[in-house]
Amino acid sequence: MNGQLDRIRRESLKQKVVTAEEAASWIQDGMTLGLSGFTRAGDAKAIPEALVKRSQKDSFKVNVFTGASLGHDIDKLFTEAGIVNKRLPFQADATMRKGINNGELLFVDHHLSNTSELIRGGVLPQVDIAVLEAVAIAEDGSIIPTTSIGNSLIFAEHAKSIIVEINVAHSEEWEGVHDIYDPGVLGDREPIPLMHPDERIGTYGIPVDPDKIIGIVLTEEYDSFSTIDQPDEETEVMAGHLLEFLRSEIAAGRLTKELAPLQSGIGSQANAVLHGLLDSEFENLEVYSEVLQDSVFELIDAGKVKSASCTSITVTEERMDILRNNLPFYKEKIVMRPQEISNHPEIIRRLGTISINTALEFDIYGNVNSTHVTGTKMMNGIGGSGDFARNARLAIFVTKSLAKKGAISSCVPFVSHVDHTEHDVDILVTEQGYADLRGLAPKERVELIINRCAHPSYRQQLWAYYEEAALRGGHTPHILEKALSWHIRLSETGTMRESKEEVTQS
Amino acid sequence: MNGQLDRIRRESLKQKVVTAEEAASWIQDGMTLGLSGFTRAGDAKAIPEALVKRSQKDSFKVNVFTGASLGHDIDKLFTEAGIVNKRLPFQADATMRKGINNGELLFVDHHLSNTSELIRGGVLPQVDIAVLEAVAIAEDGSIIPTTSIGNSLIFAEHAKSIIVEINVAHSEEWEGVHDIYDPGVLGDREPIPLMHPDERIGTYGIPVDPDKIIGIVLTEEYDSFSTIDQPDEETEVMAGHLLEFLRSEIAAGRLTKELAPLQSGIGSQANAVLHGLLDSEFENLEVYSEVLQDSVFELIDAGKVKSASCTSITVTEERMDILRNNLPFYKEKIVMRPQEISNHPEIIRRLGTISINTALEFDIYGNVNSTHVTGTKMMNGIGGSGDFARNARLAIFVTKSLAKKGAISSCVPFVSHVDHTEHDVDILVTEQGYADLRGLAPKERVELIINRCAHPSYRQQLWAYYEEAALRGGHTPHILEKALSWHIRLSETGTMRESKEEVTQS
Repeated sequence: MNGQLDRIRRESLKQKVVTAEEAASWIQDGMTLGLSGFTRAGDAKAIPEALVKRSQKDSFKVNVFTGASLGHDIDKLFTEAGIVNKRLPFQADATMRKGINNGELLFVDHHLSNTSELIRGGVLPQVDIAVLEAVAIAEDGSIIPTTSIGNSLIFAEHAKSIIVEINVAHSEEWEGVHDIYDPGVLGDREPIPLMHPDERIGTYGIPVDPDKIIGIVLTEEYDSFSTIDQPDEETEVMAGHLLEFLRSEIAAGRLTKELAPLQSGIGSQANAVLHGLLDSEFENLEVYSEVLQDSVFELIDAGKVKSASCTSITVTEERMDILRNNLPFYKEKIVMRPQEISNHPEIIRRLGTISINTALEFDIYGNVNSTHVTGTKMMNGIGGSGDFARNARLAIFVTKSLAKKGAISSCVPFVSHVDHTEHDVDILVTEQGYADLRGLAPKERVELIINRCAHPSYRQQLWAYYEEAALRGGHTPHILEKALSWHIRLSETGTMRESKEEVTQS
Repeated sequence: MNGQLDRIRRESLKQKVVTAEEAASWIQDGMTLGLSGFTRAGDAKAIPEALVKRSQKDSFKVNVFTGASLGHDIDKLFTEAGIVNKRLPFQADATMRKGINNGELLFVDHHLSNTSELIRGGVLPQVDIAVLEAVAIAEDGSIIPTTSIGNSLIFAEHAKSIIVEINVAHSEEWEGVHDIYDPGVLGDREPIPLMHPDERIGTYGIPVDPDKIIGIVLTEEYDSFSTIDQPDEETEVMAGHLLEFLRSEIAAGRLTKELAPLQSGIGSQANAVLHGLLDSEFENLEVYSEVLQDSVFELIDAGKVKSASCTSITVTEERMDILRNNLPFYKEKIVMRPQEISNHPEIIRRLGTISINTALEFDIYGNVNSTHVTGTKMMNGIGGSGDFARNARLAIFVTKSLAKKGAISSCVPFVSHVDHTEHDVDILVTEQGYADLRGLAPKERVELIINRCAHPSYRQQLWAYYEEAALRGGHTPHILEKALSWHIRLSETGTMRESKEEVTQS
């Protein structure tokens, strides 16, 4: 306990130590909470858990704002306890997803760079209490984050009060990896002075008025580990297609083998595609991303990646062990930033990132759905994919061409929800191949998308749709009566296939 | 002619003067042309006309890249002549529109800030010949643009050859209004050092290697004048709703009566809404927009707008007369920039613009279609609306709630094409009222959109759709079988209305 108290380096704050139960008791019905945490990393742990326990006796509801998804089943427990009124800007929990789709709670699906603007601008309800995980509180009261920063800076700045969870499971060696920068009020801003992914422009800690810290809870608990699937045969083939595309860009004189700052979305497929760079000729790579997953660390270990910028580190247990045991080595190569900066349009456009994100489905003209199953049910949220795709040098979307054992084609006539419009999607990659859509009119895109990215067993059906639509004319030919028929058929018959022919799997 | 030659201040270039016919003869089949011109302003005039004449004898096709739409019926004449292979990034001509939808030519619908990146990055075919209108060529060979800049800088930099049309109908007094700045190669950039709409960061002219200028054509012809409709009763009501919203932002402490830099899209409705500021209490306004239409000059004359930044000035004949006769007065208040800078995400986000653009239709969850009639037929293109909406402080979309005498509702269950996703649309305004969608979950948006923005005569039909959809559940409830039924009904019966009841017009 004494060792733990040493983490509170501002003497006057030591008296603020309370139990998680006491801190949780301060949270009132109707409040808005700002919780640290981004894709399972650096989340406040003890107070949310204590709050769930409290709900067994008390009746209350709160708004829950975070960086992105949380670990420790907190979103699951929150949903089961029925204590969430509104949740934003991202989640990735099966139980919460079900709750959102059943109308048990409200979910607002933000671009992850945007929530901070809405808080700073006073558009969202003010955060009553920010609950932020930290490795330490510095002498000046500033909060040293752990394995993510997410929205913690903006929560700390705008919350009425702050509770800190000092988690001694995270080594104090994490201090110095963070780079805290606030761009300032809209309309009264300097340019963000970041020209390269490895530069530092801010402070190590989150500056706060120490009087706003109303409580400190001491914890010792690891982050939930990443649960991504390891690369499989199909994702390896996808990675191969991506490498083939990157090589063609080099051949065309548009890239060098140092490529450009890489961003890869959360999830198994984007991770696997990045993993594919391991055995490539590309070198001296830089990463400017949202989340670092296992693959980035593999690339660092292999000497392929020289620096990586992120807002969160979400890795498997095995990878976290290596990271923990070699933190000084990795710290030299990593900078963690607020998600507003990791995802900022100004920086992404300036750096010219190569952005790789996962699509749920895409259509024959290149529109992408990232969020809604059959246009109605929320999956996780758009996350940072829009922040990156809209401003990247190369907006690449990856997905396997089939899902549900071939009952679902990722390539459809008309996506059932649009998160990334035809104006913003540059390259599509599936295990079948890649389609480079840049500079092409809609009708030029169709052939590439169907013949290179759709699964062969669906190509005939896609061509039949397009050819019938093309007879009607138009810049983007569609048959509105049939545009969503694939999704309707899936609901009614369990498959998007028109005939009962043998399901062919790749 | 001597007076005209004085406009070529670099002596050695005077020998490059040729007729438009001769210059047009240099254009070969298969070439890519980069023409100056943005929303009818500052377009190359004589050479395109000569090229159309040449097509009566010669058979050829070219790619036509511009800033945005052209005047002088050039797009119409090009289409009728059948000489365009691919056109980008924007057009607004009825004949060309028909040609695009009939498949006579290919059209690529870019965000207007993006074309320059694709040219700079070598993604689009290299421009063979840039044809740029100018008021003069300076001693160092740099080209002084006229009433628009558009993509002229990037065309001049990357074209193999340049032909200049010196148009003496434009006074040399235009010199000094332009501010030419190139952000540099992706990944090797400084921040764009623009912090306020009225700042200058570049040069007066477009710097070029004088040897690239292969010909100069002397012309004397005005721009085509703007053909926008004057504000009517409904657009005045819409402007009133927008003012009401802006006042509520002031009341909430989120804006002052100086507002924030204003952007307004091209077209009658956005112009009319801006016109509504004339009799308001707002003052010391700044404009950071793409095109200045009549309304901005009215606001300057009224002392409401103190400075305006743009890439093009497109006004009525009456307004152009006033502008021409008082150019020194207006020049002090106006800066013209390349469209890459007027529409740049970095600047738009930094300034925090209030962006007002026109929607073709919107749906009950806030997705906006700006481009495609019934999801298939191209209207004009997305233009700059995406550049602004995606990065603005306030992304506002305006449209009348009815079209075609009530046969079309602008509010539909599911838009037939998505240009602006639910993640990017903040405020919808019709003559019925406004809906503030910020921070709201999809289900929260429905009531505001239907009850405040849809026309009363369609509300019952919209509610019937939503209520049936909501029974099925989901984050964004839809009935896919009926989602596009309004557009299908319109095609089949000539109206979106379900029953034959009397058409009510507002």
